[in-house]
Amino acid sequence: MTDWLSNPFDTGPDDDKLREECGIFGVVGVSSAANFTALGLHALQHRGQEAGGIVVHDPDQGFNSVRRFGYVRDNFTSQDVMDTLPGPIGIGHVRYSTSGSKGATAIRDVQPFFGEFAMGGAAIAHNGNITNADALRRELIERGSIFQSSSDSECIIHLMARSLQRNIPERMKDALRRVEGAFSVIAMTRTKLIGVRDPLGVRPLVIGQVGDGWCLASETCALDIIGATFLREVEPGEMVVITEDKVTSHRPFEPARPRFCIFEHVYFSRPDSILGGRSVYETREAIGRELAKESPVEADVVCPVPDSGTPAAIGYSLESGIPYAMGIIRNQYVGRTFIEPSESIRNMGVRLKLNVNRALIRGKRVILVDDSVVRGTTSRKIKEMILDAGAAEVHFRIASPPTAWPCFYGVDTPQREKLLAATMTEDEMRDHLQVDSLRFISLDGLYRAVGEARGRDPDAPQYCDACFSGDYPVVPADQLERGFAMKAAE
Amino acid sequence: MTDWLSNPFDTGPDDDKLREECGIFGVVGVSSAANFTALGLHALQHRGQEAGGIVVHDPDQGFNSVRRFGYVRDNFTSQDVMDTLPGPIGIGHVRYSTSGSKGATAIRDVQPFFGEFAMGGAAIAHNGNITNADALRRELIERGSIFQSSSDSECIIHLMARSLQRNIPERMKDALRRVEGAFSVIAMTRTKLIGVRDPLGVRPLVIGQVGDGWCLASETCALDIIGATFLREVEPGEMVVITEDKVTSHRPFEPARPRFCIFEHVYFSRPDSILGGRSVYETREAIGRELAKESPVEADVVCPVPDSGTPAAIGYSLESGIPYAMGIIRNQYVGRTFIEPSESIRNMGVRLKLNVNRALIRGKRVILVDDSVVRGTTSRKIKEMILDAGAAEVHFRIASPPTAWPCFYGVDTPQREKLLAATMTEDEMRDHLQVDSLRFISLDGLYRAVGEARGRDPDAPQYCDACFSGDYPVVPADQLERGFAMKAAE
Amino acid sequence: MTDWLSNPFDTGPDDDKLREECGIFGVVGVSSAANFTALGLHALQHRGQEAGGIVVHDPDQGFNSVRRFGYVRDNFTSQDVMDTLPGPIGIGHVRYSTSGSKGATAIRDVQPFFGEFAMGGAAIAHNGNITNADALRRELIERGSIFQSSSDSECIIHLMARSLQRNIPERMKDALRRVEGAFSVIAMTRTKLIGVRDPLGVRPLVIGQVGDGWCLASETCALDIIGATFLREVEPGEMVVITEDKVTSHRPFEPARPRFCIFEHVYFSRPDSILGGRSVYETREAIGRELAKESPVEADVVCPVPDSGTPAAIGYSLESGIPYAMGIIRNQYVGRTFIEPSESIRNMGVRLKLNVNRALIRGKRVILVDDSVVRGTTSRKIKEMILDAGAAEVHFRIASPPTAWPCFYGVDTPQREKLLAATMTEDEMRDHLQVDSLRFISLDGLYRAVGEARGRDPDAPQYCDACFSGDYPVVPADQLERGFAMKAAE
Amino acid sequence: MTDWLSNPFDTGPDDDKLREECGIFGVVGVSSAANFTALGLHALQHRGQEAGGIVVHDPDQGFNSVRRFGYVRDNFTSQDVMDTLPGPIGIGHVRYSTSGSKGATAIRDVQPFFGEFAMGGAAIAHNGNITNADALRRELIERGSIFQSSSDSECIIHLMARSLQRNIPERMKDALRRVEGAFSVIAMTRTKLIGVRDPLGVRPLVIGQVGDGWCLASETCALDIIGATFLREVEPGEMVVITEDKVTSHRPFEPARPRFCIFEHVYFSRPDSILGGRSVYETREAIGRELAKESPVEADVVCPVPDSGTPAAIGYSLESGIPYAMGIIRNQYVGRTFIEPSESIRNMGVRLKLNVNRALIRGKRVILVDDSVVRGTTSRKIKEMILDAGAAEVHFRIASPPTAWPCFYGVDTPQREKLLAATMTEDEMRDHLQVDSLRFISLDGLYRAVGEARGRDPDAPQYCDACFSGDYPVVPADQLERGFAMKAAE
Repeated sequence: MTDWLSNPFDTGPDDDKLREECGIFGVVGVSSAANFTALGLHALQHRGQEAGGIVVHDPDQGFNSVRRFGYVRDNFTSQDVMDTLPGPIGIGHVRYSTSGSKGATAIRDVQPFFGEFAMGGAAIAHNGNITNADALRRELIERGSIFQSSSDSECIIHLMARSLQRNIPERMKDALRRVEGAFSVIAMTRTKLIGVRDPLGVRPLVIGQVGDGWCLASETCALDIIGATFLREVEPGEMVVITEDKVTSHRPFEPARPRFCIFEHVYFSRPDSILGGRSVYETREAIGRELAKESPVEADVVCPVPDSGTPAAIGYSLESGIPYAMGIIRNQYVGRTFIEPSESIRNMGVRLKLNVNRALIRGKRVILVDDSVVRGTTSRKIKEMILDAGAAEVHFRIASPPTAWPCFYGVDTPQREKLLAATMTEDEMRDHLQVDSLRFISLDGLYRAVGEARGRDPDAPQYCDACFSGDYPVVPADQLERGFAMKAAE
Repeated sequence: MTDWLSNPFDTGPDDDKLREECGIFGVVGVSSAANFTALGLHALQHRGQEAGGIVVHDPDQGFNSVRRFGYVRDNFTSQDVMDTLPGPIGIGHVRYSTSGSKGATAIRDVQPFFGEFAMGGAAIAHNGNITNADALRRELIERGSIFQSSSDSECIIHLMARSLQRNIPERMKDALRRVEGAFSVIAMTRTKLIGVRDPLGVRPLVIGQVGDGWCLASETCALDIIGATFLREVEPGEMVVITEDKVTSHRPFEPARPRFCIFEHVYFSRPDSILGGRSVYETREAIGRELAKESPVEADVVCPVPDSGTPAAIGYSLESGIPYAMGIIRNQYVGRTFIEPSESIRNMGVRLKLNVNRALIRGKRVILVDDSVVRGTTSRKIKEMILDAGAAEVHFRIASPPTAWPCFYGVDTPQREKLLAATMTEDEMRDHLQVDSLRFISLDGLYRAVGEARGRDPDAPQYCDACFSGDYPVVPADQLERGFAMKAAE
Repeated sequence: MTDWLSNPFDTGPDDDKLREECGIFGVVGVSSAANFTALGLHALQHRGQEAGGIVVHDPDQGFNSVRRFGYVRDNFTSQDVMDTLPGPIGIGHVRYSTSGSKGATAIRDVQPFFGEFAMGGAAIAHNGNITNADALRRELIERGSIFQSSSDSECIIHLMARSLQRNIPERMKDALRRVEGAFSVIAMTRTKLIGVRDPLGVRPLVIGQVGDGWCLASETCALDIIGATFLREVEPGEMVVITEDKVTSHRPFEPARPRFCIFEHVYFSRPDSILGGRSVYETREAIGRELAKESPVEADVVCPVPDSGTPAAIGYSLESGIPYAMGIIRNQYVGRTFIEPSESIRNMGVRLKLNVNRALIRGKRVILVDDSVVRGTTSRKIKEMILDAGAAEVHFRIASPPTAWPCFYGVDTPQREKLLAATMTEDEMRDHLQVDSLRFISLDGLYRAVGEARGRDPDAPQYCDACFSGDYPVVPADQLERGFAMKAAE
Repeated sequence: MTDWLSNPFDTGPDDDKLREECGIFGVVGVSSAANFTALGLHALQHRGQEAGGIVVHDPDQGFNSVRRFGYVRDNFTSQDVMDTLPGPIGIGHVRYSTSGSKGATAIRDVQPFFGEFAMGGAAIAHNGNITNADALRRELIERGSIFQSSSDSECIIHLMARSLQRNIPERMKDALRRVEGAFSVIAMTRTKLIGVRDPLGVRPLVIGQVGDGWCLASETCALDIIGATFLREVEPGEMVVITEDKVTSHRPFEPARPRFCIFEHVYFSRPDSILGGRSVYETREAIGRELAKESPVEADVVCPVPDSGTPAAIGYSLESGIPYAMGIIRNQYVGRTFIEPSESIRNMGVRLKLNVNRALIRGKRVILVDDSVVRGTTSRKIKEMILDAGAAEVHFRIASPPTAWPCFYGVDTPQREKLLAATMTEDEMRDHLQVDSLRFISLDGLYRAVGEARGRDPDAPQYCDACFSGDYPVVPADQLERGFAMKAAE
């Protein structure tokens, strides 16, 4: 529902949200790569709050790294720590969790991963998910590789260690050609910063210029914080190799039609980042306008579910002319779970984070705009709070289509049977949530809002929308082996 | 400017904000007073983030207390800590800083304060400021009292200890009759919960009913979080004494005309709290509307300075018809200061917290709505960021009159010479900030927005507005002794 | 039994030891009083391991203090902490526990205590116990004093606050004349260091010279660590007032015959301290010799119970000619309690700390020398370990008489009924411990060993030996009120 | 000099000591292997204080591990931690430092090391040092192995991962046949506990029986703490494979003449451990007797340098008839470094740990017995303290021969040029230390004391004594490559 649900301290009664699993950043050609990387990761913290790591290289002091659980602001701000990370080149990673051991992540699962090869060391940071990691891991262990983590990303560094190629960029191409799935990867050697996106370009990656140096980041908001200029996106299937002098572009993979993740527009990316030449905020406002056109309703006030529903709610208000208001207020100090008194408090978990603006809501017909419905558990509690406060009607408007399929490309999704939309129609969901109306934006409407005037091309979809459509652009090989059932051909 | 500037970890380049210094809560007649108090204090965290304390009493285990630096969510959520706080009655306090030793607060300054008297113990939690504390302290030391803290509030408990009265409520009346200034106090004995407001009622205090028990709190948002029903405000000059059975009302002071703090409406209170029968959010929206009427300007977009400028910006937009948009995005993960790379980054301090929505702002005439201007340092940096992003014009609209005088009634204000409005006219401030226009709401406009249709009554002002007007309803005796110069009679 | 039982982390199955409750130190006329005080307290750590505090005064920065739970080495060694304690005069305190709330000591119970008086501040550190503290506290509360701690020592500072005298040394005399019991006190004002011993001189206090300054300490080992010269003991009933220039001596009390605590010789003081002109080590060796004369036995080896039985065991060996050997080895890394496997381990608590030198003990007749028997629980387990290792015989020799009475003068003793010697004769104790023989040194023998050639003078005992004799030199008023029964007159 | 110099918090002016680098423990066939392992490691803490780790396997929950910096008592005693380590089989390791990155050990260097192989996981714990680790590491990296630590021991697990053998014991034999140097290794699979000693048996390893299970440990003191029965030593060159049912013995290496480390007798092992059928304490007492025979001197008192010189001092006293006394007292609470006052204190570093028993020493001729002289820095300071206290003469007697060569078999030694005995004769050392006499035990005397009646066999030395003789039984290949010069052939 909102960023606060991404808070690692949040142990509330439900976790009703899809979550991006990683943010990555790298920089070369600056005085202190670590200071820039810390800032860049701080700007990308919404993409992963569980842990973060930075690796740097200095000509005198070699490679150094710090990897920690917790926020960037808590781990990478003290002079003591940052002094251990000297040098002009570095990469960093923030993560929510891996495809590995959920809930029991060890520090050894925290990226960047580092390997010492015969020709020198390399470190990698990966955003995405490798869909054939199980098979790769078995094969590598058979040959005598020792895995240190439960992360799928570790396969890449072992494949690189065993490559027959003579330099690290070539070993990296070699490795990534064995890898299936979604990946944006930033790697570094002693002198080179390398950025790669998978052939479909599922996850984002951008290039910026900062002073005399260069940087790579998941989103442009990480360029803004360090005052860097946004040059361009790394293209799907492209590898860029950056030294202090220049950027060279490589094309290691077979060409493919891009399928960027459409959910980055809906929820994952920060509203002030630029995707496809437009701010994500504007796209979300456009989603709200589109939703108002598709699913109008008579009401007194349009309220966002804070904070992620806000731009779409503003768009809905502007299009519909119904006044926008903050009917739900978020507590700035969310965090841990409090002990509930024995006089148990209705919806206490949600109350810790949200409070209804009772005096405002009383007697009103309320449109609530949210970005998505995953399990539906939070939606239901919010509806109850709104009604308890005396609202006359509650109409839910959702800024994405029904989420009916899990993501296997780097997003943490519940198992399919936990997704409300996997087992119910829109009407059933409305009844389940006990609201006066419930409407999702259509898939075509979403495509229009992101700029595809003619909507989705069913023969060659312009985006990855597997979570809505069940149309998986890369076969999820490991998942099929574990029993996942793909959508039957129609 | 915004709540995030109240963050105790925020060590940014300036501190451009007035801050409420305390939030208080008390409850009686429940199974676990401490659990309720922790929740209530969590909801009041915006009133004080530096430290918090809880005192409880249990018939078997007597009085117990925990007082800690940091957030309520970090200190009062573990089972271990809460198990040390049993009992059906308790009070709590969150604080930003005291009138005592600024910047070097010791744990002994953290309230509630406790005293063991011959007839049993009592604890008190105080929101406000005692304006004759210096004189009281000198007198008490002369008589042999030993002060443990540097807090003005400690005078109250020593006056109670020395009172000749035979029970604690009477001793409390005795003590508070010697005290001048602004105070809302919650006190407890083994069986009684006591709430008092000073005769002018400068600081808020409300009564709620929860299950079979009662609670007192600074704001109604603390009732909402525990599912309590809002009964009424404690009235100015009233003392309520609450046992498990009943609430009795006392009037220990000479009657006076109330002068509630008008800044609670502008900034201090949470938008979802109810003051004077209306949500604070609605009042702030009304301030924005009033501001749009008083100071219109042609522009393309109305943007709040997040988060505290948001309701007024919405009001301005609704009144003016100029679209509302989030032109500035706040980083959810603000906190500590990062180390700046040697390639220094323009306005880095503000960048850590805010980012301009560049693609949205470019080429636009922007109205920025903020709640107040204190030193003006942050306002100037935000303006620079907006212009860097390519805005065509920047117009500041401020939801309060110029802050030209310090507060001596429980709010942390810079010394008078640091207040921008103490040394400059509105036009000089505009030039200083280098914006296209700068307008504050008028004092009468603010009074109209809070519900006084005829504006401020200059002969008998309905509110305490000393920070704007220099009209101090209680003589700040200690401050005069320290050299503060009151406004010359006109 | 041994110093390790004084370890605050030791949560073993029994606590079979008397414990000194405090060590005190003060210094004036040096560059950094805090650094000297930290060293002095470190040398006195054996007198109190639970918490420690330091108060200093600096002409520019006034009084400052730090009080913490834990070891001196952990709390008073960082530059950060010590930088907050500037100035040429300071005092410090280490404590085991107070006569107040056992087991739940709050940080507010940690000394030194500080009071701001009309003529300036003063701090005090107290070793001993006030036997009329309950009555004094009641009286002070009646008059309106607010106690912050549960410590008996706090009475002194409140009595001083209420004194009618015009300077602090006179107020201190005034206060101490109301106090009954055992006390060595170090106090400080902005310029004066004050040392006092009660009229009987129950607890130790010595004066040293360090550079151009002076210091006071519980024992001479605290002078050694800072390279100070030992001048003399503060005499029973004496108050010394020390400025940077000179030491003046006062006699505020009625003269009395001294009764120094004889147990300081047996166990409390460090073996390298000097008491009565001789090292404590030598006295303890003499006790061992005396014990060998009084209670010889045929055996193969004399072993100490480490570490406190060591000097007496050496003395016993030297006198008897039976070889000395370390039959029990102490683990250097004692500390917390480990989780016992479900296959429960015999005497695991003791095994964590001690191990028998099996190969050495097997088949031998062993004399075990220990300093005292309190509850007897540890003695019994050690005996079992020795027998398990194959010893042929076990003979206990105890370097003090049977401990049959609690101490009310600053030592932590179990209640009388928990003292083995309060309910059993020597023979019954031998049977209870199931050893081949058990002998305590006689009271006269102990007096001889400490230098009284003719033994104890029954009409005017030269020492306080209440724990052995039940002869209490100061009436324990509070204890009698709580129901303690004195020894019946004979 | 003494155990306290092994304290990791000790940051005193010198580090005048050789240090054992590791202790290892393993157990199978018990209810909770982790609880036993924690106890065993606690008993072995003297062999390594920097860090410790435990790995266990449970049929349901698989392999789990915890590795931490600090003491066993601090890391492996809480229920929370131990609950994460279920299962009937486990191994553990304590370490001082590795042959890897001294002074900057990362947690990834902390053993046991774990590897997942195709046939299941295995963990290893290593005591000793691999003398061809550099070459092995280069070779393994060339083949694509990725090292996670800087530890020489990690080679073993990578060699095992790449072995062509089909089960783990066979892979371990395969791996250890490539390894040169000194090693006692404990390994585990899901069901097997494996113990191996190198062909020379340089480092110790013993087998015990506990309940229905078995355990392996560096020393017998780790058997005593858990109540296990000592069965026998693992023999040099032997591999034992232990299941819940039985112990099988293997001989994977070419036969060789054993060369056990003689310094284990002198200093490393705990005095209550059994080596060669006798307690180490007795051996050290015998060394003292031998020393008294070889190097008598007229004196008044024999004093140990505490604590490690104690048994030899007792032996010296018994043989010579000169009384034994504790002339130097050790502070039980040693730890961190205190800030020295500007009035600098002579020998402050040593004073923090030791104090001379001044009253005892004054005017006496003192024999000081210490276990070894490494750099000589501490010896010199102790001598100064003894003379400052008024001793008439100071005679040093050292319970080992001059330490003139570094150890490359798992002991932390200074570089050769820092060893006093590498650059000075015995007489020069005496003059350097400015003592009245200085005598080391002869190498033959030491051999006699450990039980070789005819002394050292120069043609086939019975022990590894390289640190005294420069006769290295295994070529230190890596060291030679780094420039170390072996002793010239004579």
